[in-house]
Amino acid sequence: MRISAIGEFGLIERIRRILPRPRRAILGIGDDCAALRPTAGTDLLLTTDLLVEGVDFTLQTITPRRLGRKAMGVNLSDIAAMGGLPRAALAVLAMSPDGEIEFVDELYHGLQEEGARFGVELVGGDLSASSTLTIGVTLVGEVATGKAVTRSGAKPGERIWVTGRLGAAAAGLAALRAGYRPPDDRIETPCELTSPLQEAIRQAIERHLSPIPRIREGRALAGAGVASAMIDLSDGLASDLTRLCRESGVSATIREDRIPIDQAAAAVAQHFGHDSLAMALQGGEDFELLFTSSWKPADIAAIFPDVATVTEVGEVQEAGQGCRLERRDGSTVTLTGGYDHFERR
Amino acid sequence: MRISAIGEFGLIERIRRILPRPRRAILGIGDDCAALRPTAGTDLLLTTDLLVEGVDFTLQTITPRRLGRKAMGVNLSDIAAMGGLPRAALAVLAMSPDGEIEFVDELYHGLQEEGARFGVELVGGDLSASSTLTIGVTLVGEVATGKAVTRSGAKPGERIWVTGRLGAAAAGLAALRAGYRPPDDRIETPCELTSPLQEAIRQAIERHLSPIPRIREGRALAGAGVASAMIDLSDGLASDLTRLCRESGVSATIREDRIPIDQAAAAVAQHFGHDSLAMALQGGEDFELLFTSSWKPADIAAIFPDVATVTEVGEVQEAGQGCRLERRDGSTVTLTGGYDHFERR
Repeated sequence: MRISAIGEFGLIERIRRILPRPRRAILGIGDDCAALRPTAGTDLLLTTDLLVEGVDFTLQTITPRRLGRKAMGVNLSDIAAMGGLPRAALAVLAMSPDGEIEFVDELYHGLQEEGARFGVELVGGDLSASSTLTIGVTLVGEVATGKAVTRSGAKPGERIWVTGRLGAAAAGLAALRAGYRPPDDRIETPCELTSPLQEAIRQAIERHLSPIPRIREGRALAGAGVASAMIDLSDGLASDLTRLCRESGVSATIREDRIPIDQAAAAVAQHFGHDSLAMALQGGEDFELLFTSSWKPADIAAIFPDVATVTEVGEVQEAGQGCRLERRDGSTVTLTGGYDHFERR
Repeated sequence: MRISAIGEFGLIERIRRILPRPRRAILGIGDDCAALRPTAGTDLLLTTDLLVEGVDFTLQTITPRRLGRKAMGVNLSDIAAMGGLPRAALAVLAMSPDGEIEFVDELYHGLQEEGARFGVELVGGDLSASSTLTIGVTLVGEVATGKAVTRSGAKPGERIWVTGRLGAAAAGLAALRAGYRPPDDRIETPCELTSPLQEAIRQAIERHLSPIPRIREGRALAGAGVASAMIDLSDGLASDLTRLCRESGVSATIREDRIPIDQAAAAVAQHFGHDSLAMALQGGEDFELLFTSSWKPADIAAIFPDVATVTEVGEVQEAGQGCRLERRDGSTVTLTGGYDHFERR
């Protein structure tokens, strides 16, 4: 059934029925504003991300349910990067009146599911007609008063760390562009996959379509006072490190032999003849956390029982040298690249 | 100069320079999240509105600066309708990489100006490329704990009130559609205007392009405990009253002879051969406040020194009869109409 058949207010009522009644929020969908009671002793965190069809996603490679999950997930990652706890979300949707109601249902189920995994209630939003499918989420989080970890606190002499392993999201995007599809999504799978490459491609696509926000890790790093500065890897290690260094007024050197390249990314890169290091450095949407710390490596490792959770990749230096990569042969190159929405391609 | 010439991060830096450094917010543009410290003893209000070119506005009739002001203003109106005080905003913008940087400058100047009039700081947002120009604002406000005025508190026997006078925004839209333009906007003015009609048209267009959020009135109504339920008139008195009644589980009757029709709207309606009552009932975007109250009219009037600020228009009744208009001849009709984004036109 088309949206125009039930109209804007019919659609709002339908979305309201999809979403559970808020338990912690004072007021959800159905009023001029949503309302929350702030937790005593916390600062408020606010973030918003817009996903535009044909720019940030294509419905050829993502189901509406996964799209809803991802729209929530990319915002969760921003809260994680401040060391915060996400609480409530607003969602905006602009789409054609000829669009299917079932698409909207699935999208909001996805938004709700991913939010609920992290304790987030979807409490409001807005709908509009548009010829370009556009989805936006605004997320509100909390962090102990004065404890938000910014991008601007890195100091020379500190070590640089990343969570998880890098490059899988870029590898997944490469696989999707080559026509591979996740088997569970009932989207056509034009390419035959054979193990173990099949498993690597599946994992990489999964990381691209359904990023894992590092809320738990971000809170551990902020709570213990480990991280002096933090950013999430949305545009790639090279550009996000450059951004953190600019905000902190420092330089940095990371070492090629320390970059934790994801195993699936390495396998997929090899299959497609791509450079897995470039995927780790320039590939966006890994949504791991990059942070700096004056703590000793052993003390940081002790916070994370799983030894693979964090990896030291380099050092913060005095301003003036930019962000550099030290190659295996000892030479250094300046880090460049990353995603730009308004770049002509 | 085109946006693609400076890219996403050049544009972010440019917007950062347009906006004053936040004074009350802890963290503005330039990090993963913005951060605010909630005021003790308050609840948080959250609202978001999306404006899509060709649906919610056309650049034929609004300058980018006014568009920025309006995008902020419609959200301010939602905070007003809860009796809240607005504090901080996030703005999202999706547009073509071929768009002009000067357009973006003007838009953000408008957002900032209108926010600043009401103490709002623009602390973050997101940018994306899109073939459809889309602007969204999320606004965060505060209200004394437990004092938010919802849509659901109206009780039978209470009186129904509106602030200001109605129909001017719809009249302004009619004038714009007929080719009239505000003289100050340097947009082509194809029609000659002669006073006093000229002045009425100018006022009506002004009300359509630059709505006045009733923050002060909303706070007075919430603070004194006057309003039992409140909603802003974004879609027209008929549909917004219907919505308030549905949320409150009540019926309502308003009286034709009480509807405060704006004088400029009446003049413009007469000129174009339109029905000014229909403009007041079905015309959207007046952004006045509709509220219900058990207070005596004299006590409500005493709160507002300007006698024209509020008008009693009808009564709340037991559920079951819907929302009705009592005509001058004593007959009643059911109220219908209002704006629907997904209605086929």
